[in-house]
Amino acid sequence: MERITSRENPKIKEYVRLAGNKKDRDQLGLFVIEGKKVCLEAFCEQVNIKTAFLTRRFLEEHPETAAQAEAAAEETYLISEEIEAKLTGCKTPQGIFCVCKKLDKLLDVDTILNKRLLVMLCGVQDPGNLGTVLRTADAFGVDGVILADNCCDVYSPKVVRSTMGSLLRTPLLWTKDSAEFLRSLHGRVYSAAAVVDRDALPMEELRLPVDRPCILCIGSEGSGLSAGTAAACDQRVTIRMRGNAESLNAAVAAAVLMWELQKNR
Amino acid sequence: MERITSRENPKIKEYVRLAGNKKDRDQLGLFVIEGKKVCLEAFCEQVNIKTAFLTRRFLEEHPETAAQAEAAAEETYLISEEIEAKLTGCKTPQGIFCVCKKLDKLLDVDTILNKRLLVMLCGVQDPGNLGTVLRTADAFGVDGVILADNCCDVYSPKVVRSTMGSLLRTPLLWTKDSAEFLRSLHGRVYSAAAVVDRDALPMEELRLPVDRPCILCIGSEGSGLSAGTAAACDQRVTIRMRGNAESLNAAVAAAVLMWELQKNR
Repeated sequence: MERITSRENPKIKEYVRLAGNKKDRDQLGLFVIEGKKVCLEAFCEQVNIKTAFLTRRFLEEHPETAAQAEAAAEETYLISEEIEAKLTGCKTPQGIFCVCKKLDKLLDVDTILNKRLLVMLCGVQDPGNLGTVLRTADAFGVDGVILADNCCDVYSPKVVRSTMGSLLRTPLLWTKDSAEFLRSLHGRVYSAAAVVDRDALPMEELRLPVDRPCILCIGSEGSGLSAGTAAACDQRVTIRMRGNAESLNAAVAAAVLMWELQKNR
Repeated sequence: MERITSRENPKIKEYVRLAGNKKDRDQLGLFVIEGKKVCLEAFCEQVNIKTAFLTRRFLEEHPETAAQAEAAAEETYLISEEIEAKLTGCKTPQGIFCVCKKLDKLLDVDTILNKRLLVMLCGVQDPGNLGTVLRTADAFGVDGVILADNCCDVYSPKVVRSTMGSLLRTPLLWTKDSAEFLRSLHGRVYSAAAVVDRDALPMEELRLPVDRPCILCIGSEGSGLSAGTAAACDQRVTIRMRGNAESLNAAVAAAVLMWELQKNR
């Protein structure tokens, strides 16, 4: 295994650029992951691994995972702890880092029509929220996630970290304009708009049609769903609150909605 | 209104210490808040405000809130934008900061026995998760939150920010040892332990006794509830998952559990 000790090594600089910049991720079609758990998920989900970086400590403590990394990655390098400190986004790095090719578990309009339950995120900006929603969707058996209206980049390290590996499993579709997308599928899907409105249908009363997939649409943290997107949906649903808080955290609201949705499935 | 321009001013140094150190918050019995929304909540909830700091921009843009701050606080100071940059924990500060006396909406064992629904957090370490749970508890009408087993400090700026004002409304009780606490209330409360275990009772099937308050116990992010705490509970409950993710984010799991709990109320 070749050893990298220079912080100026081009492979190291590439990793740092990919961790920091969406533009580089888009241009190169690559993203980065770190930590034993998510790297194991990546090997297991057959994600294409371009480069793996391991510390000597990791090699000694986790020889099996290290061997899997070497087998999965096109190139594997041994890195010093100084380089590790440069790569990591964590307080206590675990000593394993990979550069991955972007995922190909993509949805398209045809595959959507064969699904049962989808979530569309419209303009979600907080990486932690976006990652948590992907993790929850995976836990609750949602069949895919549609990213609309310029959500933040799912390949940013913070999103990847928050998904706890779910990103690598969840089928994804990107679309520019949620309202247009919903109109194009009118009659072929059943769409529900999550809104903060006491007059909307309480989520637990929603009954899904059995003949079409359902798309649950969730808006951004600050401003919720746009009026245009809500109007393009078949139903407006809400979470009835008993208490005092004006609203829920976006990831929490999405979780409660998905929870009720999969119960009614 | 007196003007502060020196970063070495003792009032400014006190704010910075309170924002950064639990030890200082504990010693002085004070904590800090920033931003228009949470400060308005504090005035509204009659929190004791020791000091308010306002920028000129805030005074000009929000004269009503500024007047409320002056009325509520023992001392109000005009600060420069340079000082604002020193005080803030946000990317885009709003120009209003307060030093508050710690809250007195406290629970004790007797008040607990008059409540219906309580949540006990055991060793929750992530400030964002803790804050989000407090916000969700408030939204779902939970009557109080018990903090056990060295949860992170609810008065840290990150928790305060994540609660979106709910911290100021929620009755709180601190206790050192969750298992001991539950044993001391044995028979007088009904306690449910949230666990990741396929054989535990699905949360939606839990029926609460009407003659006693219910305490839902939620463990830490990493390791969940301790065996001792779970054993001290009357029932073990879980969230049945259909999908692939091994577990949910702690704040998401707490939200789904509280949601089901308040539905059964």
